[in-house]
Amino acid sequence: MVRGAANVEAMSGALPQKLRADAEDNRARILGAAQALFAAGDLNVPMRLVAERAGVSSATLYRRFPTKAALAAAVFAEQMRACEAIVAEALADPDPWRGFCLVIEEICELHARNGGFTAAFMSSYPGAVDLAQERRRALRSVAVLADRAKHAGRLRADFVLDDLIIVLMANRGIRAPTAAAQVAAARRFAMLAQHGFRAEALPAA
Amino acid sequence: MVRGAANVEAMSGALPQKLRADAEDNRARILGAAQALFAAGDLNVPMRLVAERAGVSSATLYRRFPTKAALAAAVFAEQMRACEAIVAEALADPDPWRGFCLVIEEICELHARNGGFTAAFMSSYPGAVDLAQERRRALRSVAVLADRAKHAGRLRADFVLDDLIIVLMANRGIRAPTAAAQVAAARRFAMLAQHGFRAEALPAA
Repeated sequence: MVRGAANVEAMSGALPQKLRADAEDNRARILGAAQALFAAGDLNVPMRLVAERAGVSSATLYRRFPTKAALAAAVFAEQMRACEAIVAEALADPDPWRGFCLVIEEICELHARNGGFTAAFMSSYPGAVDLAQERRRALRSVAVLADRAKHAGRLRADFVLDDLIIVLMANRGIRAPTAAAQVAAARRFAMLAQHGFRAEALPAA
Repeated sequence: MVRGAANVEAMSGALPQKLRADAEDNRARILGAAQALFAAGDLNVPMRLVAERAGVSSATLYRRFPTKAALAAAVFAEQMRACEAIVAEALADPDPWRGFCLVIEEICELHARNGGFTAAFMSSYPGAVDLAQERRRALRSVAVLADRAKHAGRLRADFVLDDLIIVLMANRGIRAPTAAAQVAAARRFAMLAQHGFRAEALPAA
């Protein structure tokens, strides 16, 4: 009896755990599928396709994410944290110009790998995903970084935050036939943009 | 009788001329309407809308341009000539770096004003508009210009034509709320791109 009771207890304890693990697994699969489908920068993907790619039923998908907006918010929250980590790392760099260049490089590459996120970040989906607050916070940090890089004489004195927005928008225009070519083109573009932002070399005395 | 005959002759001479003038007018109105509708970079505009905007009947539109491809070809032929004129002017500049910068500036601005053309130039409409030959010719001229600018020590030594393609694609990613802001952003971007392409300043001896 004692043994039996222990077994029942073990089973009743194991079952929810297994269910929780399955649920976590479903959630991860849904987010992965949605991220892959949003990567092309288009949120107009039917929920049905997300469920199909994740290998879950539509019922499971809708139970977890009742709307496309809720799904997109969950997908982009993680990437927003990655973006904030980039800016934090850049701010912590003792060389503000190197930090500034890091932001351009990493954000350009982030977009090349995941166009959906930068589209969300640039508020391309009014009503669906609102990262306005996060964007303002990130841009404030970049403004601090840019001021430091200007004072260090490395960033062009006439740089304004709109220049960075222009470059990030421009990076979104780049299309390459393969994922690898897309990343290579984004890296090259980031390098050219960094050179464009450099302060003019002082004339030799 | 002599007078009457002269009048008839004058009338019969005037009528075709008037018809020809009307026909020319229709053609210009159709091309203008199509250009305005294609400017956003999307060729998927119903022919009906083109006719409506031009103020001609669908019958008149289809008589002149039996297919969307024929219409697009006529619209972009003129802009292709403008583009070729820019490259010719740049090649003729005694300062190859100034010529190279001119190409970037003017093409970026051309796109800001008319996205449909650069989309056609970048072969975004396979099957509808084929500017591949013109593109090759223009790029060959830019390659000559780039070599001269490199030899003059002004263009970065590692510049490749793909860099220009990346910058032109990138320029297409820029979106501004108004036409004026679009042109201003394209100009600023062209300036940053030029700086990105500059040869590194030689270290002071």
